Amino acid sequence: MSDKKILMAEKDMPQRWYNIQADLPNPLPPPIHPGTKQPIGPEMLAPIFPMGLIKQEVTTERWIDIPDPIMEALRIWRPTPLVRAERLEKALGTPARIYYKNESVSPAGSHKPNTAVAQVYYNKIEGVKRITTETGAGQWGSALSFACNVFGVECKIYMVRVSYEQKPYRKMLMHCWGGNVVPSPSPDTEFGRKVLAETPDTPGSLGIAITEAVEDAVKRDDTKYSLGSVLNHVLLHQTVVGLETKEQLKIAGDKADILIGCVGGGSNFAGLAFPFVPDKLKGQDMRIIAVEPTACPSVTRGEYRYDFGDTGHMTPLLKMFTLGHTFIPSGIHAGGLRYHGMAPLVSLLAQEKIIEAAAYRQNPVFKSAVLFARTEGAIPAPETAHAIHCAVEEALRCKAEGKAKTIVFNFSGHGHFDMASYERYFEGKLEDYEHPEAAIRKAMADVPEVP
Amino acid sequence: MSDKKILMAEKDMPQRWYNIQADLPNPLPPPIHPGTKQPIGPEMLAPIFPMGLIKQEVTTERWIDIPDPIMEALRIWRPTPLVRAERLEKALGTPARIYYKNESVSPAGSHKPNTAVAQVYYNKIEGVKRITTETGAGQWGSALSFACNVFGVECKIYMVRVSYEQKPYRKMLMHCWGGNVVPSPSPDTEFGRKVLAETPDTPGSLGIAITEAVEDAVKRDDTKYSLGSVLNHVLLHQTVVGLETKEQLKIAGDKADILIGCVGGGSNFAGLAFPFVPDKLKGQDMRIIAVEPTACPSVTRGEYRYDFGDTGHMTPLLKMFTLGHTFIPSGIHAGGLRYHGMAPLVSLLAQEKIIEAAAYRQNPVFKSAVLFARTEGAIPAPETAHAIHCAVEEALRCKAEGKAKTIVFNFSGHGHFDMASYERYFEGKLEDYEHPEAAIRKAMADVPEVP
Repeated sequence: MSDKKILMAEKDMPQRWYNIQADLPNPLPPPIHPGTKQPIGPEMLAPIFPMGLIKQEVTTERWIDIPDPIMEALRIWRPTPLVRAERLEKALGTPARIYYKNESVSPAGSHKPNTAVAQVYYNKIEGVKRITTETGAGQWGSALSFACNVFGVECKIYMVRVSYEQKPYRKMLMHCWGGNVVPSPSPDTEFGRKVLAETPDTPGSLGIAITEAVEDAVKRDDTKYSLGSVLNHVLLHQTVVGLETKEQLKIAGDKADILIGCVGGGSNFAGLAFPFVPDKLKGQDMRIIAVEPTACPSVTRGEYRYDFGDTGHMTPLLKMFTLGHTFIPSGIHAGGLRYHGMAPLVSLLAQEKIIEAAAYRQNPVFKSAVLFARTEGAIPAPETAHAIHCAVEEALRCKAEGKAKTIVFNFSGHGHFDMASYERYFEGKLEDYEHPEAAIRKAMADVPEVP
Repeated sequence: MSDKKILMAEKDMPQRWYNIQADLPNPLPPPIHPGTKQPIGPEMLAPIFPMGLIKQEVTTERWIDIPDPIMEALRIWRPTPLVRAERLEKALGTPARIYYKNESVSPAGSHKPNTAVAQVYYNKIEGVKRITTETGAGQWGSALSFACNVFGVECKIYMVRVSYEQKPYRKMLMHCWGGNVVPSPSPDTEFGRKVLAETPDTPGSLGIAITEAVEDAVKRDDTKYSLGSVLNHVLLHQTVVGLETKEQLKIAGDKADILIGCVGGGSNFAGLAFPFVPDKLKGQDMRIIAVEPTACPSVTRGEYRYDFGDTGHMTPLLKMFTLGHTFIPSGIHAGGLRYHGMAPLVSLLAQEKIIEAAAYRQNPVFKSAVLFARTEGAIPAPETAHAIHCAVEEALRCKAEGKAKTIVFNFSGHGHFDMASYERYFEGKLEDYEHPEAAIRKAMADVPEVP
């Protein structure tokens, strides 16, 4: 009987991150200044990011050594298990072999700490005493709070007010690790005070929270800002996921035919998939699928063009698949997938047809999540459930076609703080959002023209 | 650098449970019928338990083979890691080596599924279609719901109404695995209807819920009842924890000097400690500490005598440390430790001074839990935090005495569904309950005399 959980020894953990910028078929279009429409230089990012991370943002070096203190921090929960979903396979009656990389075993319960510990470390060694960020449902805020605690850096989190009030458990998690969380808009920033004066009852938004966190970082010399997805250096830090997975598949004597990850900003998908891309470019037969909700279908229905990364025009223009920066996705429970754009690196690979994308509705996604929980035991986060649903669909296709393919997906996070979503599903109260055609057309009209 | 996580291969999982009844210095006093005051025979338990479990309750065979289908179910999450708490050691500045056995990695988040899958299996092979149980905060109910789902057995859980309303997440977890949960008292049983008629606004109690679950099981031919702690067979199933730990300490080249577990009914403590008891009886220098809350100090302040296992006199009389079956513990957040008695096997070992006990107040316990979260990352359940606090105290003693002892404790569960307790601690709103002298004296007066 083969092992259900494919484990790795700590000594075999990847010692380097894999940088896909070394292997792109075409160079990544640079970020552009919204005023001048010219590429922006690293120095323009210096007020909000430490130089160590800015360098990682632009380098085309293939391998980047992971500093020892980051390795030490990663060892708190890594390597993570690769698990054979044999009970799910059996329930589906599929000849496919399904594996999942279990990133939910981190203290914060998701893949997010992989980049959080790296980002905090590079801030720390450049003398940064305090880091700000925004968080929606709280996955990223709790990961950064955890990482700041590891390195003894102060952490200030602007949490979208409606989530702060409706999802108190993740706020409490941040408190456990010493993070300072305030509901956004807050009286702590100029922008927050302005919004509060104009609309005292606003539920807040990720756009407002980003603006507050960046304003806070820009105004204080001891403070920088941190982002949980989208940017190149964030995706780089996540590649430990795919590098471990490759080793574990070798241990299992297996080879991936289909790789799957859900995409919001794109970091957990990229973390799993990027280290496999060189093999695909060398001719290995492999499908790589990014899964998004139909309610926020940036890759499947958006356009590949320059757009703002945020609603409030604080970021440079990024070349990416976008639904328009003024697009407001419906209130799906997979809050982490409600982003109008997509990481530029993921976008480029999609544009080049190296990866593909699929979009699913909420109810079938939750149906697969429950099937997973009732076979494999673990309760997935609603975001992760999108990857699971795609794996189920592909496994059923294998069954129909009589093909014994190997499917690997990223189990990016557990759903322990999302149980209310499951309850709504069981009560039949989840809405099934269609592709938001009209809203996308409207938002795309706001996207600036770049020559 | 030595590994932080000491892993075991699935093929090295223990294939047998260890039965401490084979190695007791004195035989275990039998359960007694409250009416006749005579020992009860196995046949009297047959209406509520399957024979496979009743046999395990009374056998003195030292090793009991674990059937393959149970091994298969355990493999969903076992073996669990033994983790070196090196960051905690460093924070304490102790020469002690601290390890924790991480039972929180199970789908239900605690050690409880170890016995749940075993119990459901033995019911299943005797044709039982449906299992009832009671649950307070929900740890046991979710574990049984998970296990029933694994073997395709129906599950009915009577959940104390106040918890059902105040801790909805665990109820939702049970739903995810297909369990049927009702608030107790419920209209589904005669006893429940009686209580509801008399006190419609009652918050419910574990005593009421037990009575409902047992009544339900007794009345239906296809249904049996299941208990999550206290009984010999439950403790037996938990010994995989200690058996794995022994192997993992060997891998680490270490030997336990101090073993620690929190005790409510006693099962997680017994699971870790029992396999080490023969070594201690053979002369190995080792302390084994059961940790309880000062609010419910059955071993440290109770008496060793026959008492009812429940408030409502449904159970036989058990010889155990008890505070009196009418004792109502204060509302501490470690709900799993609010039990007036103690497993008869644990009680006998305490009486024989083979194990010792310690009691702590809530606030210092939460202080240690936060220290643990801020060093090791993981958020402990309030119950588990009692074991952590004891480990911290012992590690500080090692520091004072300059002794490099090896301390091993059972990390019995995570606190993801207990975040509100942490928030109350941070807000300074946790009460520090003293030893409840007067309440214990009053309750002990209700304990029946057994010649």
